[in-house]
Amino acid sequence: MFSSFKHFALAGMLAVSLGASAQNQDSLHIRKIYDEALTNGKSYEQLRYLTTRIGGRLSGSPQAAAAVEWARQEMEKMGLDRVYLQEVMVPHWQRGEKEEAYIVNSKISPNQKVNVIALGGSVPTPGQGLTAEVVEVKSLDELQKLGKRKVQGKIVFFSRAFDQTHIRTGQAYGGAVDQRSKGPSEAAKLGAVGVVVRSMSSALDDEPHTGGLRYAEDAPKIPAVAISTKGAELLSKLLKEDADLKLHLKVNSRWLPDVLSYNVIGEIKGSERPDEIIVVGGHLDSWDNGQGAHDDGTGCVQSMEVLRMMRAMNYKPKRTIRAVMFMNEENGLRGGTKYAQEAKAKNEKHIAALESDGGGFTPRGFSMDATPAVYQKIVSWKPLLAPYGLHDITQDGGGADVTPLRANGAAVMEFVPDSQRYFEIHHTAADTFDKVNQRELELGGASMAALIYLMDKYGL
Amino acid sequence: MFSSFKHFALAGMLAVSLGASAQNQDSLHIRKIYDEALTNGKSYEQLRYLTTRIGGRLSGSPQAAAAVEWARQEMEKMGLDRVYLQEVMVPHWQRGEKEEAYIVNSKISPNQKVNVIALGGSVPTPGQGLTAEVVEVKSLDELQKLGKRKVQGKIVFFSRAFDQTHIRTGQAYGGAVDQRSKGPSEAAKLGAVGVVVRSMSSALDDEPHTGGLRYAEDAPKIPAVAISTKGAELLSKLLKEDADLKLHLKVNSRWLPDVLSYNVIGEIKGSERPDEIIVVGGHLDSWDNGQGAHDDGTGCVQSMEVLRMMRAMNYKPKRTIRAVMFMNEENGLRGGTKYAQEAKAKNEKHIAALESDGGGFTPRGFSMDATPAVYQKIVSWKPLLAPYGLHDITQDGGGADVTPLRANGAAVMEFVPDSQRYFEIHHTAADTFDKVNQRELELGGASMAALIYLMDKYGL
Repeated sequence: MFSSFKHFALAGMLAVSLGASAQNQDSLHIRKIYDEALTNGKSYEQLRYLTTRIGGRLSGSPQAAAAVEWARQEMEKMGLDRVYLQEVMVPHWQRGEKEEAYIVNSKISPNQKVNVIALGGSVPTPGQGLTAEVVEVKSLDELQKLGKRKVQGKIVFFSRAFDQTHIRTGQAYGGAVDQRSKGPSEAAKLGAVGVVVRSMSSALDDEPHTGGLRYAEDAPKIPAVAISTKGAELLSKLLKEDADLKLHLKVNSRWLPDVLSYNVIGEIKGSERPDEIIVVGGHLDSWDNGQGAHDDGTGCVQSMEVLRMMRAMNYKPKRTIRAVMFMNEENGLRGGTKYAQEAKAKNEKHIAALESDGGGFTPRGFSMDATPAVYQKIVSWKPLLAPYGLHDITQDGGGADVTPLRANGAAVMEFVPDSQRYFEIHHTAADTFDKVNQRELELGGASMAALIYLMDKYGL
Repeated sequence: MFSSFKHFALAGMLAVSLGASAQNQDSLHIRKIYDEALTNGKSYEQLRYLTTRIGGRLSGSPQAAAAVEWARQEMEKMGLDRVYLQEVMVPHWQRGEKEEAYIVNSKISPNQKVNVIALGGSVPTPGQGLTAEVVEVKSLDELQKLGKRKVQGKIVFFSRAFDQTHIRTGQAYGGAVDQRSKGPSEAAKLGAVGVVVRSMSSALDDEPHTGGLRYAEDAPKIPAVAISTKGAELLSKLLKEDADLKLHLKVNSRWLPDVLSYNVIGEIKGSERPDEIIVVGGHLDSWDNGQGAHDDGTGCVQSMEVLRMMRAMNYKPKRTIRAVMFMNEENGLRGGTKYAQEAKAKNEKHIAALESDGGGFTPRGFSMDATPAVYQKIVSWKPLLAPYGLHDITQDGGGADVTPLRANGAAVMEFVPDSQRYFEIHHTAADTFDKVNQRELELGGASMAALIYLMDKYGL
C-alpha cells in the first residue's frame, strides 16, 4: 500500500512540473482523438475487408500477398509522406487437406472422431496416417519421468489445462504453452511417433487451436496436433477406462521453399526531430484456419488508424511516426527480426515501438520493456489516460514483433486490451470478424494514438 | 497540488503502520474468492437454465413465476439460513402478436417493412392498425417548437442517435432515453396519433430495442414503438426525399389486472451484528423478447454466487448478508420499492445495498450513492481491488432496485462492468445466453463478493 501511494505522489509531482496548462491541452487533444475514432473511425470497415474479403493469411500464402497489397493501398490513400515495402523471406508451410483423428479401439466409444488441427509447422503423418497407443502427461517433467520405455512408439498426449485462476488469461496461456512449443521435440527424443496437445484455450468447447511448434535440431520431427478442450477431456476419460486404446492421426501438411514477402510501412515525417522514430504496429499474417480478426487484423487496422487520425486532425508530429504491418509473426517472426536488423544497419534511432497483438478488445492499459526512467515518465501520464480505462501500465514486456527493437535502444511496448475473451478464439476457425466489437476496436486505436501523441510530444 | 499529494503519501504510511497484516489477510481472502469463482463457479450453469429453460420473464408472465420458483429452489439448495418470498403486486402487460410497421406510400421504396417493437406499456393501435404521416424530430424541444399544427394527426418520429463519443455507453443511453420515456406523452399532448423512437442502441443494425415508456396523467395514451437503428436511418432518408410518406403501424398489446408476484430473498445471518444488513441483488424479471441474459439474469446469478461462495469457503459474515432477486425492475420497480418499504416498516437497518444490473461483462469498478465518509472508506480499499481490474470507484449512483433503500440510510451501489457491448443487445431479442462469457460473468460475481466481504468485515 505504501509504495502505491508513493507512486501516486511521484506522479503528482511530475504532473505539477509539467505544468497545468500543458496537462489541460493534452487532455483536450486526447479527448479529440477519441472523438475522431468513435465518430469517424475507419478501422472497423478496413477490418471487415481484411478478414472477410482476404481472410486467413498465413505467411507465404496468396492471401498474405493480397494483405500486403491491401495494406499498401490503404496507407497510400491516407496521403502519408511515404509508404513502402520492406522485403522479408518467410517460411511457407501448408496445412493441406483437413487433419483427422479417431479413437480406434476404445471399448466404450469405438471409432470416436475427435476435433484436431495440426500445429503450425508440423510434419505430415505417413500417407495413410499413423495409429498408436496414447500416453498422457500433464507436463514436460512428467514426460521425462516416464522415460523412453514408456514413450517409445506411442503418441504423447499433453493434457495440462489453463490455470483459470489467473486474472489475465495471457498468464494462463504462458503457463501451458510449453506443451505446444516444446512438447513435440521432447516427446520425439524419447521415441514418440506423434503428439496431441490440449488446445491452448480458456474455454471448454469443440474448437481446436493451432499455433506454432518449435522442432529442436537434435530430435526427429514427428507430427503434432492440437485437440479441442472437450476432445481432450474425453480422451483423458477414455484413457482412464481403457489404457490401451489407440489413436489414429492423419496430418497432410507440407513444407515448401521460403517465399519473398514484405513488411508494409507507412510514415509521417517528424517536423522537429525527423531522425527520432516511433513505431506503431501489428502483424499482417495470421493462421490459416480463421480470418485472423483479433489475431491480428485488429492490431493492423488500429495502427493505420493512428496515422489516419493524425492526418484527419491535421496534427504534425515532431518525430517520425511509422505504422508497420509486420509479416510472419505467427511462424517465424521474420518480419519483426528483419525490421530491427535494417533499422540497425541504417543507424535509425527508434525511441519507442508499440504493438497491438492482444486482440481488439476494450482497453486496459499498456505493457512495456523500458528503462525505469521511461517507465516512470509513462506512468506520470496516467491521469491523462485513466478516463479512458487505461489503468494498467506495467513492465511486462512489449509485443513480439517490436521486441527485437529493444536491442536497438527503443522502449518496446504492447497495447493491453481486456484479455477475457481472447484465448477462446485465438488461433481457431472462430477468430472471425463478427467477434470484434466496433467500439472496443475504436477505443483501442484511440488509446494507442493517445500514447503515441504523448511520446511524440514529450519524447522519452 | 504538491502538498496534497504529500499529505496523501503520509496517510498511506499511517495506513501501513495501522494494518499491514490485516491488509495482507484481506488480500489473501479476496484472492481465494476469485479462485473459488473461477474454478468452482456455479453462476454460468445457473444462468444457462434461467435464460434457456425459462427464458424471457416479463412481470406477471408464467415465466416470471417460474423464475421465482427457480430462484427459491436454487437458494434452498445452498443451505442458507433463510430463503423466503416477499409478496409484491406487479403490472401485467402483454405484447400480443408481433408488431408490424410499413412505409406505405414512399415513392422510392413503397411498402418497405421496417423492424419495430412496441415499447413496454404501449397501448395497442386500433384493430387494423393506424396509418399516418410522419414528422421527424431530434428532441422533445424540437417537438415543442413544431407545435400542435404540425404534429396533430401525425406519427412523431424521435430520431436522436446515441452520442458515440461517450466512453461509458450508459451516458449515451442517458442522453437519448427521454425520447422513449417521455416522448409518447409529449407527442400525444400535441395531438400525435403514434410515436416511433429510434432504438436506444450503440450499434447500427436491424434489432429493435424495447424498454419502458411513462405515460403522463394529463395526456392521451397513444401507441409507441422503437424502430431498429438501421430502420431509423432509412426512415430519415426517405422522409428527406418524400416528406408526405405514411407509416402503417400495428401494435397488439393489452393491459391486464395486476398479478401477485415476489421478490426472492436468501439470507446468511450475521455472527456479530445480525441486525446490520447488507443486500446484494439483481432483478429477476426481464423483457419478453429476449432471454434476459445480461439484463439481468447475470445480476441474479452473480448475487446468489456471493452467498454460495461464503458457504463454500466456510466464511461466516459478521453482518447479515441478503441476496435479493427483485421483481419488476423493467416496468414498474415495484419489487425494489416494496423491499425498501418493508425494510422501513420492520425497522431493519440496511447499511449497504449493491446491485448488478449493467450486464455480466468484465469488471471495471463500483458506482454508488453514499456519504463522503463511506465513499472515502471504499476508495481506501482500492489497492485490494485494483489487481482485479476494479479501478473505477465513483459516486454515480446505485442500481435502480436498491436506490429506494437510500432513504432508509443505506449506501446504495452498483457493480460497474465494462459497458461497450451492453447497449447493443439491451432490451432486444439478442440478449441471450450465448452473449455471456463465462469468465467475465464469474469475475463479476467475485468482484461483488470482494466488496461485500470488505463491507461486512469493516462496516461502513
